[in-house]
Amino acid sequence: MKLHHVIEAQQFDVPTLSYLFKVTEKMEQLVARGGTSDYLSRIMATLFYEPSTRTRFSFETAMHRLGGRVISTENAAEFSSVAKGETLEDTIRILNGYVDVIVLRHYEVGAARRAAAVSRVPVINAGDGVGQHPTQALLDLYTIRKETGVVDGLRIAMVGDLAQGRTVRSLAYLLSKYKDVKMYFVAPPLLKMKDDILSHLRERKVGYTEETDLQKVLPEVNVVYQTRIQKERFGDRTADYERCRGVYILNQDSLKLMKPGAIIMHPLPRLDEITREVDEDSRAAYFRQAQNGLYVRMALLTMVLASEPSSRRR
Amino acid sequence: MKLHHVIEAQQFDVPTLSYLFKVTEKMEQLVARGGTSDYLSRIMATLFYEPSTRTRFSFETAMHRLGGRVISTENAAEFSSVAKGETLEDTIRILNGYVDVIVLRHYEVGAARRAAAVSRVPVINAGDGVGQHPTQALLDLYTIRKETGVVDGLRIAMVGDLAQGRTVRSLAYLLSKYKDVKMYFVAPPLLKMKDDILSHLRERKVGYTEETDLQKVLPEVNVVYQTRIQKERFGDRTADYERCRGVYILNQDSLKLMKPGAIIMHPLPRLDEITREVDEDSRAAYFRQAQNGLYVRMALLTMVLASEPSSRRR
Amino acid sequence: MKLHHVIEAQQFDVPTLSYLFKVTEKMEQLVARGGTSDYLSRIMATLFYEPSTRTRFSFETAMHRLGGRVISTENAAEFSSVAKGETLEDTIRILNGYVDVIVLRHYEVGAARRAAAVSRVPVINAGDGVGQHPTQALLDLYTIRKETGVVDGLRIAMVGDLAQGRTVRSLAYLLSKYKDVKMYFVAPPLLKMKDDILSHLRERKVGYTEETDLQKVLPEVNVVYQTRIQKERFGDRTADYERCRGVYILNQDSLKLMKPGAIIMHPLPRLDEITREVDEDSRAAYFRQAQNGLYVRMALLTMVLASEPSSRRR
Repeated sequence: MKLHHVIEAQQFDVPTLSYLFKVTEKMEQLVARGGTSDYLSRIMATLFYEPSTRTRFSFETAMHRLGGRVISTENAAEFSSVAKGETLEDTIRILNGYVDVIVLRHYEVGAARRAAAVSRVPVINAGDGVGQHPTQALLDLYTIRKETGVVDGLRIAMVGDLAQGRTVRSLAYLLSKYKDVKMYFVAPPLLKMKDDILSHLRERKVGYTEETDLQKVLPEVNVVYQTRIQKERFGDRTADYERCRGVYILNQDSLKLMKPGAIIMHPLPRLDEITREVDEDSRAAYFRQAQNGLYVRMALLTMVLASEPSSRRR
Repeated sequence: MKLHHVIEAQQFDVPTLSYLFKVTEKMEQLVARGGTSDYLSRIMATLFYEPSTRTRFSFETAMHRLGGRVISTENAAEFSSVAKGETLEDTIRILNGYVDVIVLRHYEVGAARRAAAVSRVPVINAGDGVGQHPTQALLDLYTIRKETGVVDGLRIAMVGDLAQGRTVRSLAYLLSKYKDVKMYFVAPPLLKMKDDILSHLRERKVGYTEETDLQKVLPEVNVVYQTRIQKERFGDRTADYERCRGVYILNQDSLKLMKPGAIIMHPLPRLDEITREVDEDSRAAYFRQAQNGLYVRMALLTMVLASEPSSRRR
Repeated sequence: MKLHHVIEAQQFDVPTLSYLFKVTEKMEQLVARGGTSDYLSRIMATLFYEPSTRTRFSFETAMHRLGGRVISTENAAEFSSVAKGETLEDTIRILNGYVDVIVLRHYEVGAARRAAAVSRVPVINAGDGVGQHPTQALLDLYTIRKETGVVDGLRIAMVGDLAQGRTVRSLAYLLSKYKDVKMYFVAPPLLKMKDDILSHLRERKVGYTEETDLQKVLPEVNVVYQTRIQKERFGDRTADYERCRGVYILNQDSLKLMKPGAIIMHPLPRLDEITREVDEDSRAAYFRQAQNGLYVRMALLTMVLASEPSSRRR
């Protein structure tokens, strides 16, 4: 099964997800054996218009574990500075002459789609503004599947900033493709899950409830997906930020309420919405979740690079 | 044929250029076959005192396609910050203990020559201020030769900012080494080709004319070399900038005036001096020109790295 | 002999140092033969919270000469920006899922120790604030041993900013482990070696004297270790800086006073505390010293990577 551009979570149907996760499992085994050098002549560009060291490191490690090579910038805006004014499309066309795959991070919604429209080589969206960050959603889903054994029948609480967090929005969307999933949206009134997702779930007849009491929800679920209240998204409204922050903290008491086989996830970075003491509990899955990002990205890279490299060159 | 430092376009005579372009053709074939790993133990440093992601990516891709390795900074001024005050010469001496070739970008005219004066390992000039950018001139010449089949007898229009564009200045210089070349300098009065180049051409008995009417010139030439009017070089004189900009735009109408086998070149980035509709025409050679930069830089790297690495170490 | 984290100079006893230097000699030979590709599947992260291109280049070259791979940032603070607020410990835990060794540069004293406390993969301290920079001390000691043939019985002058230079402080500490070493501390009154080191030397019965007259000391020693008066450490006190700077300059006259077999060292970068004319003298060892840093870092990397990679993964 081949894949070309990776632009948004919605492009993946369930069979493609199953195939991707099978490849991802192979990548775990490959890393355990020390990686490969099959891709020694393949080059990936990480073209980041805003810095995101965490995401960049994950993709670059993925390419290196496959044996490949990387050219990299977190300062891609320099390519198209105000003075110089190059379009994203021209930059992508030039990179098409150099590399085999482009990982793009951009501050504008829709940038990845625009890049893909002119690119012969695969473009992988590593986040475009408040838009998509599909590889995060994929690694979240992979983690749920790996840690809990199933997705069908899942009970999941999504906690914190559901209004602005693109992670939980994409995950809710992906989970709606599976059977008998129930979602508990636990958020302060200001940060409730938005109507577009809720109406999508109603259309697909996916069960959900909106809650404000985390304590009540914890015993019910297999997965608690905690998120950070993102200060940077509140702008000047510091009073609102302070009101929302600290409402839902996961701590030792929360662990007591959770099922023995349930897990805690978090897209990271975290502040104090999960206390340090929780880290020691085997149900704290967030660092394993980050590591799964490496394997999922390796799998995506192998899938998009599967076609013959020479066929992509002029 | 060996080469040590690459400092300025003038250092290349016609036989060396012919040899370089023969190696460049081999590099194209090498990339089509997926590259090599012959240089797995060779290291290139990209030492950039000012950012130029575009040029850096081209050199780094070139080294990777050869199988080599790269250490990289776009922030080399940190080496010699005001507080620390290290000279360029000391920085180069230290890098001589680490790497096999240094690609230098600097904001001062003459920096590459100073670096080469103290360096045992080859230094390649990737631009020094308003001075030289020899690999750009070489890839321009290679593109002309490859796309039009010849250089002797060439008819070329250079358009736009001829006063300040180092690209066209270097190219005019290189072309003066070939036979029966005629150059059409098409520029607003403020941005005319400077006298040093014109008198050099007269000395070498190279034909040229100065024009202001692009329409008249287009049917005459094999190559239209368009350039960007560089806002950053005008400083406060925004009125002058606005007057010069937009005078010479290449668009669909221009294509109709051009010969069927003629090509359009541009050093990139472009703004609106070539309209998007032109991109679809097979005579639009500027993205192929950027890709040729990769091959020319691979060729230069193989030539400067040809001598035994151990002989360069203490 | 295995090594896990490399946090401070004090952790090395004399047998470990001897072993390290034996491995370092092998690394010199390895580089002369063109390096190796034994570590093609091993990845090093250079996690720099403040830029230090010089140190970063040395570590990255070391990993590349071993055949390994590198992911790199000089902007690691972005991981834990004010807005996002991730702890160093969380960042290290995430990187543990990606790489085989972490080279950490941080602006806070003790950061390397905190990182090592939570890291399964080896952490190498590449400088933490005014604290430790152990690989610099190790390469200094290696240079002394290689250039003068011995450490026991050494006569060494340390010159310049002894109060604030962490280099000379660490080196004095390491030298105190050897026999019959005598140190001459030559500094302006404001920049004298601090009491903690002096009392340590008295306890270990290591001979030292404090001097202000460099001329008198030069004929006595095997090694002159010159340092830069670091303007940035004086803050507003520019008058003090100007008073201290320029007191001890090494020039052609100094060379005449020195023994024929003595050497001049300097951690670099230098300003004018060693004049350019000195560079030509074979006793000027400072560029060789920088190159030894490459070999020592290669040796440390092989030692910390010696254990099975798979054993470090979950």
